[in-house]
Amino acid sequence: MKKLAIIGLGLIGGSLSLDMKRLFPELVRVGFDANPDHLRLAQENGLIESAATESDLMDADWVVVSVPVNVACGLLESLLHRVGENTLVLDVGSTKADVCRMVKHHPRRAQFLATHPIAGTEFSGPTAAIHSLFQGKTQMICEADHTRDDLRTAALQVFALLGMRVAYMTPEEHDKHIAYVSHLSHISSFMLGKTVLEIEKSEKNIFDMAGSGFGSTVRLAKSSPAMWTPIFIQNKTNVLTALDEYIDNLKTFRNKIETENYEALYKDMEDTNHIKQILKGIYNEE
Amino acid sequence: MKKLAIIGLGLIGGSLSLDMKRLFPELVRVGFDANPDHLRLAQENGLIESAATESDLMDADWVVVSVPVNVACGLLESLLHRVGENTLVLDVGSTKADVCRMVKHHPRRAQFLATHPIAGTEFSGPTAAIHSLFQGKTQMICEADHTRDDLRTAALQVFALLGMRVAYMTPEEHDKHIAYVSHLSHISSFMLGKTVLEIEKSEKNIFDMAGSGFGSTVRLAKSSPAMWTPIFIQNKTNVLTALDEYIDNLKTFRNKIETENYEALYKDMEDTNHIKQILKGIYNEE
Repeated sequence: MKKLAIIGLGLIGGSLSLDMKRLFPELVRVGFDANPDHLRLAQENGLIESAATESDLMDADWVVVSVPVNVACGLLESLLHRVGENTLVLDVGSTKADVCRMVKHHPRRAQFLATHPIAGTEFSGPTAAIHSLFQGKTQMICEADHTRDDLRTAALQVFALLGMRVAYMTPEEHDKHIAYVSHLSHISSFMLGKTVLEIEKSEKNIFDMAGSGFGSTVRLAKSSPAMWTPIFIQNKTNVLTALDEYIDNLKTFRNKIETENYEALYKDMEDTNHIKQILKGIYNEE
Repeated sequence: MKKLAIIGLGLIGGSLSLDMKRLFPELVRVGFDANPDHLRLAQENGLIESAATESDLMDADWVVVSVPVNVACGLLESLLHRVGENTLVLDVGSTKADVCRMVKHHPRRAQFLATHPIAGTEFSGPTAAIHSLFQGKTQMICEADHTRDDLRTAALQVFALLGMRVAYMTPEEHDKHIAYVSHLSHISSFMLGKTVLEIEKSEKNIFDMAGSGFGSTVRLAKSSPAMWTPIFIQNKTNVLTALDEYIDNLKTFRNKIETENYEALYKDMEDTNHIKQILKGIYNEE
């Protein structure tokens, strides 16, 4: 690998750039960001060597599209026409159905790989980029067989070098499942933060009483609105289904509190404690 | 301090016992737990020297009531009659109004101190007890002036030695605020866990896609039903108010997704990002 172009120098694009330089010390990394401050910071912090030019798209091995999902869908059609014949374009967004539909009939579909590294944090922008972000994380790949064999094989080798576990899924399955295990968590956390901030306006010092549990549940409410707004809209159908189920569960639990139904409340929580075993499997927790 | 009696050998009672032995090496620690396995484990793990007898209540400096809040309310009336004249009885429960009402006219009210150390985790039982749990944490104290001066002063000295910051509040204020910054987080997390476990029954391998954000938001769903069921019921009025506001916020957000109201969704999340500054203040986060 000789040249890497990163479009969108945030947490994912920036962190990938850092790791790629470690894997390939001779790599030339160029980048673009719609925010001039982010482009400058990315250079100052060593995420890229220089700003990307049109000719970089032609001879880059990879062009990584790590921008909000609506922006990605808007630029892929044109971008795929502007890259070299052996360039692979990867997107890393948190929704996959729209972007796969967008490129479905593109003459250069075979030069595109739809990925979703499950490696986000609540931080964003070039200053959030860190080394080894992808180590031990899952790389979701959709429609892998639509990508040219040589380009996909090379990409899989790099994902392995990054320490990633690869999983395959259709875009539709991906978007349905990710609505539950990621998008819903973000909404739950944002609305929890909103609810507590609202009451805090009239009740001062309420945060004196906040413990580590509160911090944990509202952590995702620090996430970027520019990233998350288009995700919720693109994945609307699945997100609404998950959110409606969540609201129904909250209402049912609410009614059990109102009627002081000790046994039913106890059983709901006891059944949900089963999440311990699952989290243990995912995170190797104690 | 010569003798400490702990009723309820779980995370809070057990951790307190560990720290007290460090502060007062000559301390004799006795304990009781309704679960015989927990009593045995507490002895094996060095949380107490032996099981408490009736006479221990008479000469203990402190009797710490660290049991579920409904159990605490049930035993305090009798317990206060059975302790020595210079024994302080402390409760550490997550609700304060009911317990303060319960002891309000007790002839030995002055030997009782209502506290809530904001130091819980999602773990419970004697094996969850850890050293230095209270270091840097907030100790909420309600109706401090109802406790005898000498007993309160001695208790405050111990809290300082434990590294705790003390804050004072009425029981009603405490229960209102804690509904927002603790009880609501637990419900939000339990119901998120329930929602995802339900869909997982029909959709296998969904947890392959779970990232650190999911783990963070469902962490509290590992908490003990025996502890939390009575908390939600005792603090019903405040919990229902907070929960109804939360459900309303979720519904409003849901409708903004359905109508693809980009600007409104963005603004909701941007406004809630303000939680960053608050979490920074609480946890000294970056």
